Amino acid sequence: MSLVGIIMGSDSDLPVMQAAADMLKQFGISYELTVVSAHRTPKRMVDYATTARDRGIKVIIAGAGGAAHLPGMVASLTPLPVIGVPIKSSNSIDGWDSVLSILQMPNGIPVATVALNAAKNAGILAASIIGAFEAEVGNKVAAYKTSLEEEVLKKVSKLKADGQPNDFDA
Amino acid sequence: MSLVGIIMGSDSDLPVMQAAADMLKQFGISYELTVVSAHRTPKRMVDYATTARDRGIKVIIAGAGGAAHLPGMVASLTPLPVIGVPIKSSNSIDGWDSVLSILQMPNGIPVATVALNAAKNAGILAASIIGAFEAEVGNKVAAYKTSLEEEVLKKVSKLKADGQPNDFDA
Amino acid sequence: MSLVGIIMGSDSDLPVMQAAADMLKQFGISYELTVVSAHRTPKRMVDYATTARDRGIKVIIAGAGGAAHLPGMVASLTPLPVIGVPIKSSNSIDGWDSVLSILQMPNGIPVATVALNAAKNAGILAASIIGAFEAEVGNKVAAYKTSLEEEVLKKVSKLKADGQPNDFDA
Amino acid sequence: MSLVGIIMGSDSDLPVMQAAADMLKQFGISYELTVVSAHRTPKRMVDYATTARDRGIKVIIAGAGGAAHLPGMVASLTPLPVIGVPIKSSNSIDGWDSVLSILQMPNGIPVATVALNAAKNAGILAASIIGAFEAEVGNKVAAYKTSLEEEVLKKVSKLKADGQPNDFDA
Amino acid sequence: MSLVGIIMGSDSDLPVMQAAADMLKQFGISYELTVVSAHRTPKRMVDYATTARDRGIKVIIAGAGGAAHLPGMVASLTPLPVIGVPIKSSNSIDGWDSVLSILQMPNGIPVATVALNAAKNAGILAASIIGAFEAEVGNKVAAYKTSLEEEVLKKVSKLKADGQPNDFDA
Amino acid sequence: MSLVGIIMGSDSDLPVMQAAADMLKQFGISYELTVVSAHRTPKRMVDYATTARDRGIKVIIAGAGGAAHLPGMVASLTPLPVIGVPIKSSNSIDGWDSVLSILQMPNGIPVATVALNAAKNAGILAASIIGAFEAEVGNKVAAYKTSLEEEVLKKVSKLKADGQPNDFDA
Amino acid sequence: MSLVGIIMGSDSDLPVMQAAADMLKQFGISYELTVVSAHRTPKRMVDYATTARDRGIKVIIAGAGGAAHLPGMVASLTPLPVIGVPIKSSNSIDGWDSVLSILQMPNGIPVATVALNAAKNAGILAASIIGAFEAEVGNKVAAYKTSLEEEVLKKVSKLKADGQPNDFDA
Amino acid sequence: MSLVGIIMGSDSDLPVMQAAADMLKQFGISYELTVVSAHRTPKRMVDYATTARDRGIKVIIAGAGGAAHLPGMVASLTPLPVIGVPIKSSNSIDGWDSVLSILQMPNGIPVATVALNAAKNAGILAASIIGAFEAEVGNKVAAYKTSLEEEVLKKVSKLKADGQPNDFDA
Repeated sequence: MSLVGIIMGSDSDLPVMQAAADMLKQFGISYELTVVSAHRTPKRMVDYATTARDRGIKVIIAGAGGAAHLPGMVASLTPLPVIGVPIKSSNSIDGWDSVLSILQMPNGIPVATVALNAAKNAGILAASIIGAFEAEVGNKVAAYKTSLEEEVLKKVSKLKADGQPNDFDA
Repeated sequence: MSLVGIIMGSDSDLPVMQAAADMLKQFGISYELTVVSAHRTPKRMVDYATTARDRGIKVIIAGAGGAAHLPGMVASLTPLPVIGVPIKSSNSIDGWDSVLSILQMPNGIPVATVALNAAKNAGILAASIIGAFEAEVGNKVAAYKTSLEEEVLKKVSKLKADGQPNDFDA
Repeated sequence: MSLVGIIMGSDSDLPVMQAAADMLKQFGISYELTVVSAHRTPKRMVDYATTARDRGIKVIIAGAGGAAHLPGMVASLTPLPVIGVPIKSSNSIDGWDSVLSILQMPNGIPVATVALNAAKNAGILAASIIGAFEAEVGNKVAAYKTSLEEEVLKKVSKLKADGQPNDFDA
Repeated sequence: MSLVGIIMGSDSDLPVMQAAADMLKQFGISYELTVVSAHRTPKRMVDYATTARDRGIKVIIAGAGGAAHLPGMVASLTPLPVIGVPIKSSNSIDGWDSVLSILQMPNGIPVATVALNAAKNAGILAASIIGAFEAEVGNKVAAYKTSLEEEVLKKVSKLKADGQPNDFDA
Repeated sequence: MSLVGIIMGSDSDLPVMQAAADMLKQFGISYELTVVSAHRTPKRMVDYATTARDRGIKVIIAGAGGAAHLPGMVASLTPLPVIGVPIKSSNSIDGWDSVLSILQMPNGIPVATVALNAAKNAGILAASIIGAFEAEVGNKVAAYKTSLEEEVLKKVSKLKADGQPNDFDA
Repeated sequence: MSLVGIIMGSDSDLPVMQAAADMLKQFGISYELTVVSAHRTPKRMVDYATTARDRGIKVIIAGAGGAAHLPGMVASLTPLPVIGVPIKSSNSIDGWDSVLSILQMPNGIPVATVALNAAKNAGILAASIIGAFEAEVGNKVAAYKTSLEEEVLKKVSKLKADGQPNDFDA
Repeated sequence: MSLVGIIMGSDSDLPVMQAAADMLKQFGISYELTVVSAHRTPKRMVDYATTARDRGIKVIIAGAGGAAHLPGMVASLTPLPVIGVPIKSSNSIDGWDSVLSILQMPNGIPVATVALNAAKNAGILAASIIGAFEAEVGNKVAAYKTSLEEEVLKKVSKLKADGQPNDFDA
Repeated sequence: MSLVGIIMGSDSDLPVMQAAADMLKQFGISYELTVVSAHRTPKRMVDYATTARDRGIKVIIAGAGGAAHLPGMVASLTPLPVIGVPIKSSNSIDGWDSVLSILQMPNGIPVATVALNAAKNAGILAASIIGAFEAEVGNKVAAYKTSLEEEVLKKVSKLKADGQPNDFDA
């Protein structure tokens, strides 16, 4: 049984969406990953969305590009939180269509939208949602954010070692 | 039995969408008009789209605003031509979201998109589609376009009568 | 103790953000609501964000407009999920600045962004997050989505009663 | 005699527009394909548009980029439905000019606009228009949409075989 | 015989376009003003454009909004310079469609585009074109630009008289 | 002798630009305010810019709208820092032209651009520039930023008094 | 003595702007071409613009990118018609800044703007302006437009020879 | 002790931001350069900003991309002038997010924004700020602007030598 369902409109979205799976793996959160297309498999989409809660899914991550209807349609069919990942696919106008057709949902049916192509952030957001209710995961998310700080501090040291003037970290 | 199905995501879209119905009435084309919401009545949407062809509908006109998924989702569920009307609803970002989420459909599932709020043009486009196969309607569309010319020529005369200099129509 | 923290950059955002509170009230979810400004009260913001988890908050809803830094900065300071509401404030360029400065967060620090001014949807999203882990709330969210369907069906009937032709609901 | 006329503003548009022809060929629909430029051959354009209906054409597909006037001008000269394909040509500003100058037609003269560069969808839309009146073509369009589903399902199986976790298709 | 032809797609554009006529009147340049619609009177448009040079017209000013094809189509039919005025008509998306469909003409067919709704500037530009070849008009244009300076200097004095601190004009 | 020169392209910009003067008055910084138009008084602009440093001016604040050339042209004529205020004037396309024609200066000639219509912020920025070198002014700017915090805290109290739930400020 | 002055903000604009010169050469119109920078050589710009008419120049073509002030500033300093070429330089935001800072000139100071990078069209427009007053040049412009038609017709034949179905040119 | 602090959100911004340092070096102004991330090292950011004035810093240059909060947050924490450099990072939507989230600061907290990726201009702006109060630096900035003119004049000569016709510089 998976806690997070990762779906995408096309397997061509996998290079972007894999980052969500990788992040969940890193947090030790079970997930499933498959293709569900709003436009080419509308019945599969209805089935996926309407059964997700009963199958134990807690969060759905849905990625799509262009006129991206998958995240919003799934959100209309489940009470679970749905995270939308706008993908800058080849048929997109610089990503604006992907962003707006996921973000601008009408009243009643929210989609938790992340940045263009930001599947990694979708994975982190799913973890933070689960972590709000499962302390162990919450601690991992907190530790992850701390690790980001450490990475930056290493770069601070490296820049200084490379000879960049720096009075602040004297 | 209606030839054209006019649907919209919300009854707040009626003031815009009525113009499609009015135009069809003017062309003597039977139509039906109702509310079908992709996000709030997804099952109704599936039923509407999958039965339309068998019910004798030839063209579907679908209007929606914001993250407007109705036209594209209906197009994915029927072999009929679907005309999309992007509506500048109150929750829209200047209409860009409405336009892009209807226009930018992926390969395989076209929506015949008209201008922002252009329900009147959706009605004319439906008539021109029917008119391509039913000569009487085709003649009416041709006559309508001629009538547009006549209206302009009346305005030409009026401007001249109002004293605007005009050597061309001397 | 509140489950949801609603914060906004200015009290001028209250008319928009109140809708989040109203929605949570409707779902029976406890919340707190106050002003926290990233730019004018940066220390208050740090305090709010770093103590929220320990105070029992599960989800933070943050609204801001223009160069809207509050949601993203709070997200950088807490492992909790942060929902961002872009507000079309008076100093905003049609809302684009609000949307982009909340949505386009860098890798590592997601913000769950909803549509422009969509505080109501932020409330529903918070409920769906809580409802993924507390079945009673999850059922309420499911019931809410069903109620949306019923509202639409009433409008379908009304349009039909108003004389709009409608073969589908015959 | 052809049922569909495919025209484009320049032979440099052929690599994009060929996809419309290929799709029609796949549906067994006769078509013709040539260059008609609104700006460089205005008389040819008038001739093409005003004779199309009498020559038996049912649908015109017109592609153009930049300040793209061909689809709209042809639509003003024929009662036939005109499908416009905005092309992201080398002189276009990211395609926005192509899209807006085709989509935003005034009241009275609709153009059925498809996505940027979506000539394939223009071919499918033409087929769905013809299919609304010729059952055999309509069945082919329906079968085509079913085939899209099958392609997706194959990819679902492939992802599963590749080791992606997937409880849904267990 | 007029030197400048002012045409517009609809009489609803007159409140904007009148400013071009007023400016020409001020410069003592003869003009004609009428409605010519690319989409509703395509034959009139062809006639207007192809006869303008022989009728003695030196410059054509063409205003249109939305998918604005009039200026570009006229430019394709005459060797005369054509000034395009993008109009923010009621069916326009904030004027972007009007601007792009007039400005972004393909190689070979330029339109001299002025700012959104800037019919006054179209009149001045026509005068400066004529003034490059007729010294008396050229002197009037030069005098007009000088008069703009004088107007500003009056406002400088007024602001100073109103008590605004001003060391520069001491 | 004034430390800050406030100039604007037209006296119609005064309602916006007065806020810069008001802010400087509040900080006790001397200023002058007048109209200098890049396009209508180019010679005055050259004189103003080339004499400003010798007249004792330390910072120039320049506001303009539409194709806004004043800030950039002044910056090219003086070694002083120039703050540009993009104004959403009546002839502007939603302010985008004002912003881009001030912000996007070429290498070598920077303009310190503030938000659309943000003349108040231009005044504060001028004060912070002066305050970096005159401690008394710097202290006033620091005190001003502290006062912003106090204003927010008053609103926090008011919201709480109005009955908004608030555990954080318990 | 040259009839057309071609100026540009930087020699890096030459690869784009050369097309204007080439076009004028083709029409047998004398021109001069040099670099005049609004921001780096403001005095040279004033000299160039204020002497152009007396030196016999009839039309100025000015190209610039980013915050492109050269065309508008020159237009403010001469009664001659100024054609602006927005250049998509390396520091431009997709060309939008170049377009808007040239096109959106205030009332009183028009710039005849052509499409992004359309220096060739600037050359043709200059020729059409001169041709409105010198019949020989006007005939050349008319012949050029006819030649465009012939080029298209050759491509029509080639496509047909390549086997594209074409009933229209039977 | 440094006069200018250059900070950036990530070391991946260094290739862009180094140009600010190079420019300051050229003007003989001391600087420090390090990584400070608003989202990954919020505490470091607070420390950096709140101590800068006391450490003798006069101007802070802050570069960031996407939802770029660093410049605005630092500006909220110091009375010093803050120059913001919007960076077109890999996760940015054509730079629009970077520009808007730095430029559109609320009243009270200005950021002196320069063009997209214009770190070089940020360095020059910092120098012009310092030069307004230290005559030697001011003279260097003035000399630098003069040197820009000389570079252009060399290119003028080169173009002429390359055979470009040029009556103006005869």
